[in-house]
Amino acid sequence: VTNAALKARVPHGERTRLEILDVAERLAAREGLEGLTIGQLAVAVGMSKTGLFAHFGSKEALQLATVEAAFTRFSAEVIEPVLQLPPGVRQIREVFEHYFAYVEKRSLTGGCFFTAASQEMDDRPGPVRDQILRFVQMRDSLVVDGLRQAVKHGELRKGLDVEQLAFELVGLANGASVAFQLTKDRKVLERVRVAFTRLLDEARGPKGKRA
Amino acid sequence: VTNAALKARVPHGERTRLEILDVAERLAAREGLEGLTIGQLAVAVGMSKTGLFAHFGSKEALQLATVEAAFTRFSAEVIEPVLQLPPGVRQIREVFEHYFAYVEKRSLTGGCFFTAASQEMDDRPGPVRDQILRFVQMRDSLVVDGLRQAVKHGELRKGLDVEQLAFELVGLANGASVAFQLTKDRKVLERVRVAFTRLLDEARGPKGKRA
Repeated sequence: VTNAALKARVPHGERTRLEILDVAERLAAREGLEGLTIGQLAVAVGMSKTGLFAHFGSKEALQLATVEAAFTRFSAEVIEPVLQLPPGVRQIREVFEHYFAYVEKRSLTGGCFFTAASQEMDDRPGPVRDQILRFVQMRDSLVVDGLRQAVKHGELRKGLDVEQLAFELVGLANGASVAFQLTKDRKVLERVRVAFTRLLDEARGPKGKRA
Repeated sequence: VTNAALKARVPHGERTRLEILDVAERLAAREGLEGLTIGQLAVAVGMSKTGLFAHFGSKEALQLATVEAAFTRFSAEVIEPVLQLPPGVRQIREVFEHYFAYVEKRSLTGGCFFTAASQEMDDRPGPVRDQILRFVQMRDSLVVDGLRQAVKHGELRKGLDVEQLAFELVGLANGASVAFQLTKDRKVLERVRVAFTRLLDEARGPKGKRA
């Protein structure tokens, strides 16, 4: 019995919340969080609207749960894999490498969820926008903290403007995410790596190795 | 008689194509090009759907006309003002300064039309996406050409990878557009200027002045 056959036997009402949110995340990355309605999701997962409504209650609750699920997945694919590395330049490079892999893996299903969602929701005040903003702030402070640790351990030079460098790394990564998603040109990902190597080399301290 | 009163007297059917597209551009920057329907635009400009249909014929034709109008305006605000400058580093800095002004001016009405539109349409193959891609390619080659001129005149150093530098400038500008639109934090615009100054300084040639 294949996995698909097993899945087909599961009564629709019993799809787990996680399975539903997996579909919701991909739908939202492509169609937008505003395009994500309980009706549309019901069709995509093959459940009744009533069944889905029981899970989420409202469109906004569905959007919030989707952002939350997207963050959990982002964390699992981009952040968690590098947590076993000591804090420093290599950890920062690795977290961005995992981010580029995340962008590439999703190139046919809407690209980076957060690039798309922040662009879509920036003009729609409310809890969904606030949650995306919290994600963005958390991401930025992770990068800033990592750079601070690298300064502390002498990998990056004293007096470095870590917030400026974090802004440039994140800005270039975001710019690359937008450009790659539009053009699907892998050169974009090569160029962003070249830029990162130079930026981190220029910021080296006494104990820093060539990035 | 005020302007508004005068305007109110103009029969609705006589709104010019340009006036309609002005509203369409702002609607699309906020609600997305997919959210832009002839029905919704009719409400926003106070015309009948029939009248608007006579202007555009289809949703796709309306989207294409809107992208075209957005490009004309982008050109008028960002590109044309710097065309009287001699090609070189100052012209490039100025074109991005005009871009940041364009982003700031639109912060309450959806931000940069093309950041939003390319993010929205990247997964929707068709003539609208193709037109946005053409815009992006034209913009990139303008920057590359400007940098090449600067190398030719000795402002930037020989052997400079102009395509890499263009990628970094455009990527940072895009990243800043996304971040500013989400956070409305003017520090974002300061940081992108700091990054540009350093990038152009590092690329200086024998006749280059400090950026």
